[in-house]
Amino acid sequence: MANSRFEYVKSFEQPDVLLPNTWIVVRIDGRGFHKLSDHYAFAKPNDRRALDLMNAAAVEVMKELPDLCIAYGVSDEFSFVFHPNCQLFERRNGKLVTTIVSTFTAHYIYKWSEYFPERPLLPPYLPSFDGRAVIYPNNRILRDYMSWRQVDCHINNLYNTTFWTMVLQGGMSNTDAEQELKGTVSADKNEILFKRFGINYNNELEIYKKGTVLYRQYELEEPKSTKSPADEETPVVESEQSRSQRDKIRKLRRKAQVVIDHVDIIKDEFWEKRPWILSGNPGKLPA
Amino acid sequence: MANSRFEYVKSFEQPDVLLPNTWIVVRIDGRGFHKLSDHYAFAKPNDRRALDLMNAAAVEVMKELPDLCIAYGVSDEFSFVFHPNCQLFERRNGKLVTTIVSTFTAHYIYKWSEYFPERPLLPPYLPSFDGRAVIYPNNRILRDYMSWRQVDCHINNLYNTTFWTMVLQGGMSNTDAEQELKGTVSADKNEILFKRFGINYNNELEIYKKGTVLYRQYELEEPKSTKSPADEETPVVESEQSRSQRDKIRKLRRKAQVVIDHVDIIKDEFWEKRPWILSGNPGKLPA
Amino acid sequence: MANSRFEYVKSFEQPDVLLPNTWIVVRIDGRGFHKLSDHYAFAKPNDRRALDLMNAAAVEVMKELPDLCIAYGVSDEFSFVFHPNCQLFERRNGKLVTTIVSTFTAHYIYKWSEYFPERPLLPPYLPSFDGRAVIYPNNRILRDYMSWRQVDCHINNLYNTTFWTMVLQGGMSNTDAEQELKGTVSADKNEILFKRFGINYNNELEIYKKGTVLYRQYELEEPKSTKSPADEETPVVESEQSRSQRDKIRKLRRKAQVVIDHVDIIKDEFWEKRPWILSGNPGKLPA
Amino acid sequence: MANSRFEYVKSFEQPDVLLPNTWIVVRIDGRGFHKLSDHYAFAKPNDRRALDLMNAAAVEVMKELPDLCIAYGVSDEFSFVFHPNCQLFERRNGKLVTTIVSTFTAHYIYKWSEYFPERPLLPPYLPSFDGRAVIYPNNRILRDYMSWRQVDCHINNLYNTTFWTMVLQGGMSNTDAEQELKGTVSADKNEILFKRFGINYNNELEIYKKGTVLYRQYELEEPKSTKSPADEETPVVESEQSRSQRDKIRKLRRKAQVVIDHVDIIKDEFWEKRPWILSGNPGKLPA
Repeated sequence: MANSRFEYVKSFEQPDVLLPNTWIVVRIDGRGFHKLSDHYAFAKPNDRRALDLMNAAAVEVMKELPDLCIAYGVSDEFSFVFHPNCQLFERRNGKLVTTIVSTFTAHYIYKWSEYFPERPLLPPYLPSFDGRAVIYPNNRILRDYMSWRQVDCHINNLYNTTFWTMVLQGGMSNTDAEQELKGTVSADKNEILFKRFGINYNNELEIYKKGTVLYRQYELEEPKSTKSPADEETPVVESEQSRSQRDKIRKLRRKAQVVIDHVDIIKDEFWEKRPWILSGNPGKLPA
Repeated sequence: MANSRFEYVKSFEQPDVLLPNTWIVVRIDGRGFHKLSDHYAFAKPNDRRALDLMNAAAVEVMKELPDLCIAYGVSDEFSFVFHPNCQLFERRNGKLVTTIVSTFTAHYIYKWSEYFPERPLLPPYLPSFDGRAVIYPNNRILRDYMSWRQVDCHINNLYNTTFWTMVLQGGMSNTDAEQELKGTVSADKNEILFKRFGINYNNELEIYKKGTVLYRQYELEEPKSTKSPADEETPVVESEQSRSQRDKIRKLRRKAQVVIDHVDIIKDEFWEKRPWILSGNPGKLPA
Repeated sequence: MANSRFEYVKSFEQPDVLLPNTWIVVRIDGRGFHKLSDHYAFAKPNDRRALDLMNAAAVEVMKELPDLCIAYGVSDEFSFVFHPNCQLFERRNGKLVTTIVSTFTAHYIYKWSEYFPERPLLPPYLPSFDGRAVIYPNNRILRDYMSWRQVDCHINNLYNTTFWTMVLQGGMSNTDAEQELKGTVSADKNEILFKRFGINYNNELEIYKKGTVLYRQYELEEPKSTKSPADEETPVVESEQSRSQRDKIRKLRRKAQVVIDHVDIIKDEFWEKRPWILSGNPGKLPA
Repeated sequence: MANSRFEYVKSFEQPDVLLPNTWIVVRIDGRGFHKLSDHYAFAKPNDRRALDLMNAAAVEVMKELPDLCIAYGVSDEFSFVFHPNCQLFERRNGKLVTTIVSTFTAHYIYKWSEYFPERPLLPPYLPSFDGRAVIYPNNRILRDYMSWRQVDCHINNLYNTTFWTMVLQGGMSNTDAEQELKGTVSADKNEILFKRFGINYNNELEIYKKGTVLYRQYELEEPKSTKSPADEETPVVESEQSRSQRDKIRKLRRKAQVVIDHVDIIKDEFWEKRPWILSGNPGKLPA
C-alpha cells in the first residue's frame, strides 16, 4: 500500500491470532432463515433440497480449504474444524472465519438455482450467514463439541417432526401443538408419533436424525487399541515440520474425496475407523 | 439449544465486543482477485463493470444495514463504517464482520450475471471476500482512515494507468514498464502519460481516480462554522437514547437514498456539507 | 534467553497492546481490606493514616512513572491515568498494570511502619492489591470516569459517616443503623447527622468528602475560552514526535512537583486551570 | 458502587477470561534488577540470600493461593502454575496476574530485612515485579514450558559462573571475558572452569544449577505405568464438581507443606513420583 501521512491508522489494527495447538471450530449460521424458509416455502419439518444445498456448499468449502479435517451440519448451521497443527493464515481468527463464511455464501448462492430451479432468489430475501471461531484445547473436548451439535440435532428434529406431524397431519393449530408438547420427554414424542400417526421415528431419514458429517475419505481402519483416540493428546506444534512436508500433506488431502455421511459421531467407532481425522495425518487412499 | 452433558463446550466461546463509543470500520477484500481478474478477463487497468458490480453489492449492504453511515470502495476492497453510537449486534466484532462479508458476497454472486452476462461464473473461480474490523477513537482519525484509502486509490491508479498504457499502447513488456517506473514520482508518471501518449491524467474518469463513496442522501447543508466537524468529539454513548428514538432514526435512514459518488473525501468540504455522516443524526430528506 | 527445543512455548504468549490514542486508566484495589482494616484496627468511618499511606504510595508511583498525568484515590482504591499519546511499554496492558500494582504495593509495605508505627505488619495480614486497565476514547469520557469515582466517594462517605456516627455516638447496633438507613437519600442522612448529633456534614474533612487527586504542579492558568477542554478531541498520535522531544517532555514532568489535593474534579474549573493534564503538554514550572 | 449518570463508563471494561481447561502460567520478573543488584551489592554470579528471599516470597504466594500446583524460580523470575480445572477469580487474566504480582511484592519487601539485615531498602531502589499470564493447552506443553525455564537456568548459570570466575578469580576485564566466551559451547565453558580454575561445574550448588521448584508435599508414589503422566490429557472441566468437593480439595491443599526443591524437572521421574501436580488431585498427606 502507498505511503502517506495517513498510514499511521494501520496501527489501530489489533492482532487476533488463535492460541497455537488447539482445535479451531468455525460455526456458521443462516441469518434470518426462519423468515427466509417461509418466503421460499421450505418443506416442514425438513426440506431435503435445502439440506442438500447446505451440504453441497459445505463440500466446496472443504475442497477449497484442505486444512479442514471434518465438518458437521444441521438445519441452517455448519461447523468446520481445523486441526491443532493448522497454520492457515497464521491462525488469524478474522481471516479464517470470514474466508469460510464468504466461500460458503458464494457457493450457496451460486448453486441455489440447481436445487430450487422453480423458486429463483429475489432480494431482499438473499441468504447470508454469520460465523464465529471457538478453540478447544484437546481431542476430548472437540469430540464433546461435535456430540453437542449432534445431540442438538436429535432433540430438535424429534420435536419438529412431532410438532409438524401434529399440525400437518393431525390438523392441530401451532399453538395447541406447542402447548401439548410443553414438558414432554423423548418417549412421549415417540409415542405421539407412533400411537396417533403410526410413525416410527426410527424410520425417519438418517440425514434428518443425525445431521450431516463431511470428511475426507481414506481406507477405513480397524480400531487398534482399546484406548479411544479421543484420549490421546493433540500433537505438539512441530515447528520442524518442513514446508515440503506440509505441502505433501496438503496434496494428499486434496486427492481424497470429500464424503457426505449421516452417522453417529458421538460414539468412539466413527473416530476409531477414521483415525486421520483426529491425528491430522492423511490416511491411505482407497484403491 | 438443547440441554445435554456436552453443553459445557459453549463456555469456550470468548466475547469480542468492540470498545463502546468508537468508529467501527469493516474492510473487506477480494480473495485471490488477481487470478480471478485474469480468468474473467477484467479490462486493465480498470474494469468498469467489475467496479460497478462492487458498488452495486455495497449499496445492497448499506440498504440492509441502516446503521452504516458511509462506505468507501476501490479496486476489490470496500470499507463500511459504523458510527460510534452503533449498538448493532451489541457491537460484537465477529457478528458485524461476518454479516457484512456474507451479505456482500451474496449480492456480488447474485448480480454477477447482470454485469458480466457473457462470462458466467464457474467454480473453482467463484469470487469470495475476507474482512476485518478496526476501531478508531475519534472523528479525526476516522477521517484519516478514509483519506488513507483515497490516497492509496490515487497512487495505485496513477501507477496502473501509466503501466498499462505503456504496455497496451506503448507495446512494452511488463518487465520493462515495471523497470522504468521504479523510483518515479507522480509528476514523472503524469509526464509519461502526456508526452508519450497524449493522455491528460486529470481527464480520466472520477470513479478510477477517486474511488467510490456511498452514503445516505439528505439535503446538503452550508458549512455553519469555520470549525471542521472532524474536530468535534464523537458524542458520548447515550444510554438514555430510548428504543423508540433509535427505531425512529433507523426508519429515517432507511428512507434516505443511498448515493454512489466519486468525489474528494480528504478535504473538509465533503464532510461539512453532509454533517449527518459524522454526527450520526439523519438529515432532512430532499423534497 | 537460551535456545532450546522447548522455546516454541513462547509462541503461546498473546499480544495485549491497548488501542492507540485512547486514555488508559489503571485502577487498583486493596484485596480483602475489610478484614485487614479490622485486624489493624483502622478508625471508622475513615482512618486518616491509612489514607495518607495510600496517598504516599501513589505519589511514589507518579514519581517513578512520569508518563502518568493524574491519579485519583478514595478508600483502598487508586486510579492512575496515562495520556492518549503514552507509549510506555508499547502500551502493553499487562506490563502497565503489573508495574503499577507492584510499585504501589512495594511502597505501601515499605512505608507502613512510618504511618502505623505501633501496629507492625504481620503475615498472613499483608496488604496487597489487584488492578485492571480500562481505555477511554476521549476527554469527555475520561472526565466522566473521574467524576464517577468522585461521586462514588461522596455517596459512600456520606453513608459511612452517618452509619458510624449512629453506631459509635448513637449507640445503635450495626443492624439497626443499616435498617434505618435503607432507602434514605442524601438529605435524610444530612438531617440525621445534624439533628441527632449536631454534625454539619459540610464541615467534614475534604480528604474524606472529595477523595484525593494527584497531579504534577505547574503554574495555574486562567481559563482561556468558554469552551471546556473536555470537549476538545484528544490529539492524534504523533509518530513524528521525536525521541528527543519525548525525552524532553519526560524530563519536564520529572521536574514538576506531584501535589496531593482534595478538590472537586467534576466541574470544569479544575481542568481549565490545569490544562496540562488533558493536553499532555507540561506547563510552566512555578518560579 | 453508587448510582450516577457517570456509571456508563463501566461499560468500557473488557472481559479477559482465560480459555477454560488450559494450564495457566503466571511468570513474574524483577524490574530493573540489574541496576538493583548493583546497588545492594548482590554477590556474583549468584547471591544466595537474594535467591532465598525470592523463594521465601514465592512460598508465601503458594500458601495464600492453594489453587497453585507448582512454581519454578530462577534468578529474579518466578513462574506460578494453575491447573486447567482452576476456577479462581473466574480465570480472569488481570485479576490472577495482579494478585500474584502484588502478593509476591508484598512479601519480598516485607522479608527483605530478614535476608539483608545490613542493607536496608532505600527508595528509589525499591524492588518491584511485572508479570504476565500464558495459557498452555495440555500437559506435554506445560512440561515443555517448565523444561524451557530450567534449560534456560542451566545455560545462563554456566555462562555466568564461567564469566564471573574469569573476572573475579582470573582478573580479566568484563569485556575480555565476554569476548572470549563469545561462540563457546557448554563443553568449552566446563573446560575453562576446570582447567584454569580447578572448578568442577557439577559440584556447584543445585539451587544455582537447577533453579528452585516449589510444590505441595504428599507421599511420593511409585510410577504406576510405563506411560508418562505428561501424555495424559488434561481432565475436562467438571461443572458437576460440587462446591463442597472443591472446598475439600482446597483444604487438603492448604494442609500440605510447600517444599523448596532443586531438582531436575525435565525428565519424567519428577512428575511420575508426584502425580498430584499434573492431576490436580491432592495426594496422601505424609504420616
